[in-house]
Amino acid sequence: MGRCADRHRPAGAQARAEAGSPARAAPAGVAGRFLREQFSLAFSVAGGDTASALAAGCPVVVKPHPGHPRTSSLVGGAVQKAAAETSMPEGVFHLVNDVSVEAGTALVVHPAIKAVGFTGSLQAGRALFNLAAGRPDPIPVFAEMSSLNPLVVMPGALRERQAEIVVGLTGSVTLGVGQFCTKPGVVLGLRGPELERFETGLADAFANVPAARMLHRGIEERLAGSLGKTQDFIRFSGAAHLLVASAEDFKTSEVLREEIFGPATLIIECADQTQLLDIAQTLDGQLTATVYLTADEHETSRPLLEILAQKVGRLIINGYPTGVEVCPSMQHGGPYPATADSRFTSVGTAAIQQFARPVCYQSFPEALLPPELHNANRCRIWRQINGKLSKEDVGQ
Amino acid sequence: MGRCADRHRPAGAQARAEAGSPARAAPAGVAGRFLREQFSLAFSVAGGDTASALAAGCPVVVKPHPGHPRTSSLVGGAVQKAAAETSMPEGVFHLVNDVSVEAGTALVVHPAIKAVGFTGSLQAGRALFNLAAGRPDPIPVFAEMSSLNPLVVMPGALRERQAEIVVGLTGSVTLGVGQFCTKPGVVLGLRGPELERFETGLADAFANVPAARMLHRGIEERLAGSLGKTQDFIRFSGAAHLLVASAEDFKTSEVLREEIFGPATLIIECADQTQLLDIAQTLDGQLTATVYLTADEHETSRPLLEILAQKVGRLIINGYPTGVEVCPSMQHGGPYPATADSRFTSVGTAAIQQFARPVCYQSFPEALLPPELHNANRCRIWRQINGKLSKEDVGQ
Repeated sequence: MGRCADRHRPAGAQARAEAGSPARAAPAGVAGRFLREQFSLAFSVAGGDTASALAAGCPVVVKPHPGHPRTSSLVGGAVQKAAAETSMPEGVFHLVNDVSVEAGTALVVHPAIKAVGFTGSLQAGRALFNLAAGRPDPIPVFAEMSSLNPLVVMPGALRERQAEIVVGLTGSVTLGVGQFCTKPGVVLGLRGPELERFETGLADAFANVPAARMLHRGIEERLAGSLGKTQDFIRFSGAAHLLVASAEDFKTSEVLREEIFGPATLIIECADQTQLLDIAQTLDGQLTATVYLTADEHETSRPLLEILAQKVGRLIINGYPTGVEVCPSMQHGGPYPATADSRFTSVGTAAIQQFARPVCYQSFPEALLPPELHNANRCRIWRQINGKLSKEDVGQ
Repeated sequence: MGRCADRHRPAGAQARAEAGSPARAAPAGVAGRFLREQFSLAFSVAGGDTASALAAGCPVVVKPHPGHPRTSSLVGGAVQKAAAETSMPEGVFHLVNDVSVEAGTALVVHPAIKAVGFTGSLQAGRALFNLAAGRPDPIPVFAEMSSLNPLVVMPGALRERQAEIVVGLTGSVTLGVGQFCTKPGVVLGLRGPELERFETGLADAFANVPAARMLHRGIEERLAGSLGKTQDFIRFSGAAHLLVASAEDFKTSEVLREEIFGPATLIIECADQTQLLDIAQTLDGQLTATVYLTADEHETSRPLLEILAQKVGRLIINGYPTGVEVCPSMQHGGPYPATADSRFTSVGTAAIQQFARPVCYQSFPEALLPPELHNANRCRIWRQINGKLSKEDVGQ
C-alpha cells in the first residue's frame, strides 16, 4: 500500500535532524465488517466503514446482514469489479457468502482479522466484543449498539417555538420509519400546561404520518415486541408511536431505558429543572443529545450541557440528531453502550483511525522509508516536522 | 477544564459556515494508572502516563507498585502539592495507599474509572484487560506487557562492523541491568564463522560487565527462574547472560519465546535468509525491531523490513531500541502481546490519545462553545477549518 494517501494522523518527525525518526500510520491488518440491518446501501457493503478500512490500507472482509443478502451481494460484486479495474491487490475485498451467526463468530475469532466494525443490537454487539476480547490476541471492536438520543426541550423554547418543534421532531422520529441510529428516542421536558399542549400537538402530528413498511419483517416484529413491553406508557399509536412517562417511572423502569427501534419516542415529564438534571445524569452513554433552548436560556442551560457533554459523542443545539454528515468534525460514537470505545467514530474522515496504527521508523535511510516519509513531500500531505505542521519538503 | 491547551487531535470544523459544528477532544473520564515495576521515578507517579492523562483533562488515580511504595508516596505528595499550588481541581490526582492485587482489581472495575494504563507482565496485564473487558461498561486498557525486541544482524553488517555492534549491543542489553522494556532480547543472524566470532565477542564483552543490583529482590528471583528454564541454551553467564539457540529450537520452544526480564539476550542461528524470514514471520507483536545492515544490503533487506513493520510499533536501522524519546513521532506500543491495543502509545505526545475522546458540538452558539472552538483562536492551537489546518481565527 505504498501509494500517497492523505492520512488523517499527521506523520511526526523527530526534532533531531541528524537522526530523523518519523512515524506514519500503518494498516492494523485485515478488517472484519458486520453490516448494519437498517442500511442496505449507505453505510453498507460499499459504505464509510469499508472505505475507511481500505483507506487505512486494510483488506476488508464483509459479513452481510440476513436482512439484505441479495443487495449486499450485488454491491459486493460491484466493489470487487472496481477493485480489479483499479488494480488493487487481489483479495483486498471479500464478501462472506454466509449470513449466519456462526459465520460472524468465525470472522471475529479468525487470527488474520485485526479489527472489527459492527453496528446492531446491544446484545449482538456485546457478544462480538466479548469474543474479540477473549481471543488469544484481543482485537479492537468498534461496535455501535444502542442510543436513546435524548432531546431536551427547555421551557422557553417550548413556549416560543412549539409548533416548529412539533413538526421537526415528528420528522426526525419518523425519518426512514424511525430506523436511524440517531433517532430521538426520549424527550425531556418540564411538566405543565405547555408540555401537555406539546404532547397533544405531537400526537396530532404523529397521527398524520403515513404508514410505511420497515426494512424487513424481523424489525417490525421487534418493534411490536418493544411496544408491547411499554404499552402502559403509550399515549398515541398509529404509523408512529408517542409514549409518555414520569421521570420517576423512567428512572426505575429497565424497559423504558431500552432503545425502541422504529418510529416511536418517549416523553419524560420532569417536575423541575433539578429532576431534569438528575435524569440527564442517570442516562447511559449516547451517540447524540439535543437541547432546544432560547437565547435567554443559555446561562441556565450550562449545567445541563456539561452533563450531556460527558454522555455523548455529538451535542446539538436547536437541531435534530438524525442527519449525520461525513466530514472531519463528525463524531458518530459515544460512551458505552452507544459504542464499545468512545475514542473512535464510524462516520467521518476520522473513521480511518479505527483501522490504523502508528509505526515509527527510527534512523532509516531515505531509500528504505515509505513514500509518505521521504524528505520530498510528493504526497503533499500534512506532516509534523520538528513540532510544526507543514506540507513542505524536509530540509528546505 | 476550560483552559487553553495544545490538544493533539486538531479540532475539526464543519464545511458549512452557516451551521458550524466543530469537534474537540474531551477527557475520557477518570484514568487509572498502574505503576511500572522497573521505573520508580521516570514513567512512574509523575511520569508521562500521568502527564498525558492530566493533559487530556482526566483526573488520575495511581496504584503504586509493591516494588517501590515509599518512592511512590514521596513523589505522589509532591504532585499533590503542585496540583494545590497551581489551583488544579481538588481530587485531580490520587495515589492509592495500597499496593495489593485486590486494590488493583478494585481500581479497574470501579464505575468512575474510564481508562486504564498499565505496564508489567503479560499475565498481570492480560488479567487487568480481561477485568476491564468484562465490566458492565467495558473500558480501554492500554497494557504494555511483553516484548522480545528482536535485532537482526545482516551478514554484511556483521562482517564490516562486528566490533562496534558487540560494544553497542552489550550496552543496550545491560543498560539499567537489562530492565528496559525495549531491551533487545533476541538477536537473529546467519549461521557461520562470522556469527561464531560474534558470539565469542559478545561473551567476552558480557564477561566485562560489572555486577549490579536489580531494582528489587522479586525481579532478581524472576530472572533466576527464567534462566533456569532456559539453561540448556546459556552460552555464558556472569553479570550478563548470553544464550544461543538454533532457529528450529526457537520455533518450537515456548520457553525461548518468553521475555527474559534482565541483562540477557538470545542469539538465534538461522541457516539462511529464508529461515531468517520464516522466524521473523513467526514472531509475536513487539514494541521494537532493529536491523543492522550495510548500504549494499538495502535491497535484500526489504522483505525482512516489510515483515518486521507488521510486527512492531518502532522499527530501527543501525541503532539500538533501548533509548525512548518523548517526541511526536515516538510510538511506544505494538501489536499484542507487546500491548493490548497497537493504535496507541504510552510514550510521546500522542500518549494523550489514550485518554481523550472527541465530542462534536453541532449548531452551537459561540457563547456556549468550549474555548478551543471559539471563532477567535485565543489558544493559538492548530484547528481544521473547512478541511484546512490553520491557526487563524474563524471568519477571517
